[in-house]
Amino acid sequence: MTAQYELPVLTADIGGSKILTAIFTGNGEIQSRNIIQTGADEGVEAVIERLVRAIGRHLEDSNLEQSNLSGINIACAGGVDSERGVVVTPSPNLPGWHDVPLRDVIEARFGVTTTVLNDASAAALGEHRYGVGKGVNNLVFISLGTGIGGGIIVDGHLYQGASGAAGELGHMTIDANGPTCGCGNIGCLEMFASGKAIVREAIKRIRDGRKSSLTEVVDGKTEDITVETIAAAAKGGDSLALEVLARASHYLGVGLVNMVNIFNPEMIIIGGGMADIGGLLLEPAREMVKKRAFGISARAVNIVTAGLGNEAGIYGAVAYAREQKIRRTA
Amino acid sequence: MTAQYELPVLTADIGGSKILTAIFTGNGEIQSRNIIQTGADEGVEAVIERLVRAIGRHLEDSNLEQSNLSGINIACAGGVDSERGVVVTPSPNLPGWHDVPLRDVIEARFGVTTTVLNDASAAALGEHRYGVGKGVNNLVFISLGTGIGGGIIVDGHLYQGASGAAGELGHMTIDANGPTCGCGNIGCLEMFASGKAIVREAIKRIRDGRKSSLTEVVDGKTEDITVETIAAAAKGGDSLALEVLARASHYLGVGLVNMVNIFNPEMIIIGGGMADIGGLLLEPAREMVKKRAFGISARAVNIVTAGLGNEAGIYGAVAYAREQKIRRTA
Repeated sequence: MTAQYELPVLTADIGGSKILTAIFTGNGEIQSRNIIQTGADEGVEAVIERLVRAIGRHLEDSNLEQSNLSGINIACAGGVDSERGVVVTPSPNLPGWHDVPLRDVIEARFGVTTTVLNDASAAALGEHRYGVGKGVNNLVFISLGTGIGGGIIVDGHLYQGASGAAGELGHMTIDANGPTCGCGNIGCLEMFASGKAIVREAIKRIRDGRKSSLTEVVDGKTEDITVETIAAAAKGGDSLALEVLARASHYLGVGLVNMVNIFNPEMIIIGGGMADIGGLLLEPAREMVKKRAFGISARAVNIVTAGLGNEAGIYGAVAYAREQKIRRTA
Repeated sequence: MTAQYELPVLTADIGGSKILTAIFTGNGEIQSRNIIQTGADEGVEAVIERLVRAIGRHLEDSNLEQSNLSGINIACAGGVDSERGVVVTPSPNLPGWHDVPLRDVIEARFGVTTTVLNDASAAALGEHRYGVGKGVNNLVFISLGTGIGGGIIVDGHLYQGASGAAGELGHMTIDANGPTCGCGNIGCLEMFASGKAIVREAIKRIRDGRKSSLTEVVDGKTEDITVETIAAAAKGGDSLALEVLARASHYLGVGLVNMVNIFNPEMIIIGGGMADIGGLLLEPAREMVKKRAFGISARAVNIVTAGLGNEAGIYGAVAYAREQKIRRTA
């Protein structure tokens, strides 16, 4: 889990709820980490200001001058054009990010070469270079969080597609008659198997009159229900929580079968906050792959949970920048 | 459309209804073609016998000795393990092909180095090397015939996955509550947008009492309805035929949106017999991509019909064998 660089780099992972910043030392170890709230609701400019302040403070706290950084490497939710460093289309969890020239903004503020990569692509690359995917030729990474993202490694390289937007695995239709997704598509996997979907389903069932220990946990305030409270209730045997997770797992399985039939990958890595739920979410989905996917592909795939947790994105952002640099100077 | 070889090769494309054989001359042009019925219902051994006879006759008619062939290159429907030359899992249209060691059988009969590749993968490669996909980095090929197959080109190479089974684009679930597919999965794209699905839907509506010019065309024998008769009726303004094609196009659009969001490809090539239906089938699907897919990816993709028709598979089978040979001797 080390990556060699001459100078330290600062890296940031901008998610729907939190921004993680970290400094990697010259010999590729994480020297320090910091987490702030994204405050996505306050809009693009407010988030960028907060990011700029977080970077500035992190450098100050580390006694680092900007001139001592070899780069700022950002992973960001949303459709990212990495060539231009622009967040082109917003993630549903980072509303308003239309055509935001994040690279140029950060370069102008700090005078340091900056790269921007989609967060799930970054996590896929991070897991491939430093996590559970090391040495695997072909893998699919799926990030299960508030939303669902993905990243694809083909022949050891991050597959980005024609404009850096490949891997939107959460936005494949799995129910052509399903509800409209925030992305504009219909019946997306994200509508059924994301954190947001699980919470929505639990709240709906409680409001429909179902009894659950969750109601006491949040003191009657159903809007305070989270994936974590649901997972805890399920582990405590709460039948509503168990049903809601079983439903999500069912649809996750449908999504995994699609990925197995399309990619015949050696490995599928399940990351994002929801991976922590573990077997309760993952086992029924794994079973569905065995039952429904093409046998030749089902036998070939190893479905595992991520190894780097919420740091996969920053590892990947740093690896991406470094490999781009090598390619440019080669 | 030429490929350079030292000696002629014989190539065969084994589909659900027909087997196409061709001889490529040493300078890579098709010298002769022949088509026979597959007779898939008669079982694996009967099909292989027919293939062997077809190859033998084709060589005889061309005054070619086996010893003058540099290879026999086969494209075959079904899940193919190209490394071992085995058809591992049957295509729904080629029933019974479980673990058929096609390469070894053909090599034993003719004493000529033989390769076997999935037919849609072969067609993808053929279109990339000699057809409409020339020079494109990343593309997805979708074969719309009796069933639906697919092939994926990444960075100019055929993406085969962990065991050569990648690209089963017809077997992604697009309706999680849909009917069971022949492959064992639920609500596959193939159940809604394949030739078989279109014919099934037309027959169902007629048997439900709908009037259609199709009934006269087939003289009341609804079992004689084909994709071709439906397409002709639709072009003649038959409203049932138009509705059935519109429905298939709708679901094809759902599938294309998924591919665009997952792959962000430069190009999607629509091949297979149903591509001949043209705009009536393809335009609404193209419109759906514009409307529903991520904007950044929808703008990047060019959705076109195949250039090599039913010969894409044989071109690809030959290209694959040649490139494998170069790789092995490199």
